[in-house]
Amino acid sequence: MPTALPAPFRHRLRVYWEDTDAGGVVFYANYLKFFERARTEWLRAAGVGQQALREATGAIFIVSETSVKYLRPARLDDEIEVSVDVREQGRASMLVAQAAWRGSELLAEGLIRIGCVDAGTFRPTRIPTPILDALA
Amino acid sequence: MPTALPAPFRHRLRVYWEDTDAGGVVFYANYLKFFERARTEWLRAAGVGQQALREATGAIFIVSETSVKYLRPARLDDEIEVSVDVREQGRASMLVAQAAWRGSELLAEGLIRIGCVDAGTFRPTRIPTPILDALA
Amino acid sequence: MPTALPAPFRHRLRVYWEDTDAGGVVFYANYLKFFERARTEWLRAAGVGQQALREATGAIFIVSETSVKYLRPARLDDEIEVSVDVREQGRASMLVAQAAWRGSELLAEGLIRIGCVDAGTFRPTRIPTPILDALA
Amino acid sequence: MPTALPAPFRHRLRVYWEDTDAGGVVFYANYLKFFERARTEWLRAAGVGQQALREATGAIFIVSETSVKYLRPARLDDEIEVSVDVREQGRASMLVAQAAWRGSELLAEGLIRIGCVDAGTFRPTRIPTPILDALA
Repeated sequence: MPTALPAPFRHRLRVYWEDTDAGGVVFYANYLKFFERARTEWLRAAGVGQQALREATGAIFIVSETSVKYLRPARLDDEIEVSVDVREQGRASMLVAQAAWRGSELLAEGLIRIGCVDAGTFRPTRIPTPILDALA
Repeated sequence: MPTALPAPFRHRLRVYWEDTDAGGVVFYANYLKFFERARTEWLRAAGVGQQALREATGAIFIVSETSVKYLRPARLDDEIEVSVDVREQGRASMLVAQAAWRGSELLAEGLIRIGCVDAGTFRPTRIPTPILDALA
Repeated sequence: MPTALPAPFRHRLRVYWEDTDAGGVVFYANYLKFFERARTEWLRAAGVGQQALREATGAIFIVSETSVKYLRPARLDDEIEVSVDVREQGRASMLVAQAAWRGSELLAEGLIRIGCVDAGTFRPTRIPTPILDALA
Repeated sequence: MPTALPAPFRHRLRVYWEDTDAGGVVFYANYLKFFERARTEWLRAAGVGQQALREATGAIFIVSETSVKYLRPARLDDEIEVSVDVREQGRASMLVAQAAWRGSELLAEGLIRIGCVDAGTFRPTRIPTPILDALA
């Protein structure tokens, strides 16, 4: 049973060896993972488990578009906070603004477009009503 | 000694288990890896090895901005071709258009902004002249 | 239609940024990916596509046990060859010896136990006969 | 200033999309990442930051050997606890037993050999005394 979502939502994570590259910093592609983790925890905070969603409705969220600016490098052991802020909410998709912070330093920011699709066909489908309500 | 770059450049790769996610398709963040592999091979085709570049000049290429649209899902065993096409060329950065194809199907396309920085300070630095010449 | 497998099988790959970590070398966990890529290409060389196998029989190969020694570090741009050598062949599993080489330098070596399972239940199932024949 | 390590140490994590593969379960190679995250947090709990260690002493921990059994699949959204238990403690290396649990179900277990090396040369070096004391 989804509940009202906290806003602004923030998820905290740590930089591990797996996240870094030979430049000594976080590999840029991994910010998409960090953003995804934060969205997952944001959905969980609203009572939405994606595995449960799929089993109950056959629907999954997919990412259809991403744009990210990488502003400052993060390093091993850094603690990072990732924010989630819905900018547009449609019936089958939404646009989410996200940012990664180390304290007051903005490391990366981006816009992520999420769609809801049928897990079998990958055709767009409506976001289930209880989730729409929770996201409202 | 860099040489003239072939254009349009294409790099072929295979989708392995590591590239997929529980949706049964390529995890979207991995297209950034696919694009990077293609850029690396494109530089190599011009005689530019990035490890050698770093040892010789202290400079590395970093990614400062990415925008990607994910159009069709790719699956395990798919063979994908990734294209590299320079759109803007500056003295310390460039903008590269990239696309991933499965045969004639466009799977993903994006714009990647690359900067040249000092590997120690991450401050912008000029792209070494032989590379600029090769990219011209 | 699987055909006799070449032996010893070797797969060549390149080290990209995505493979490295802040130690400046290939992140050790990624040798499991390199080994997997080589096994996939080895199966393909025998005419076995894993996606096609799943669609035709409902069976997938899973990894049930891995042991790896990491002997020398690999770096960005290194070209690596990965070998595949079946040590034991059973009806539902096999043990594969694998090694990663940079020229004549042994970088890592390991033993990987593979099982064949039903993709829905993850219960062990016999390796389809044409594949057993090809692996013989 | 390292302090006495808690024992047995456990680190909790969540399975995200990035961790899964097209089998619908956690990609086996990622248990090495989960184990590493737990070791990092275990060191942190003892006051040892690896980035700080490197800057202060030039030493880094590397993984020289891993053996892992994958017993049960984990899925998206699962909460996993990873344990850390030192089995052998030498002056330049240690052997750590690790396991991943979902509640009372054992998902994977392994032995990880860690070495201490100079970050520049990758030659073995003694584990700094304060860390040895903390690990004792």
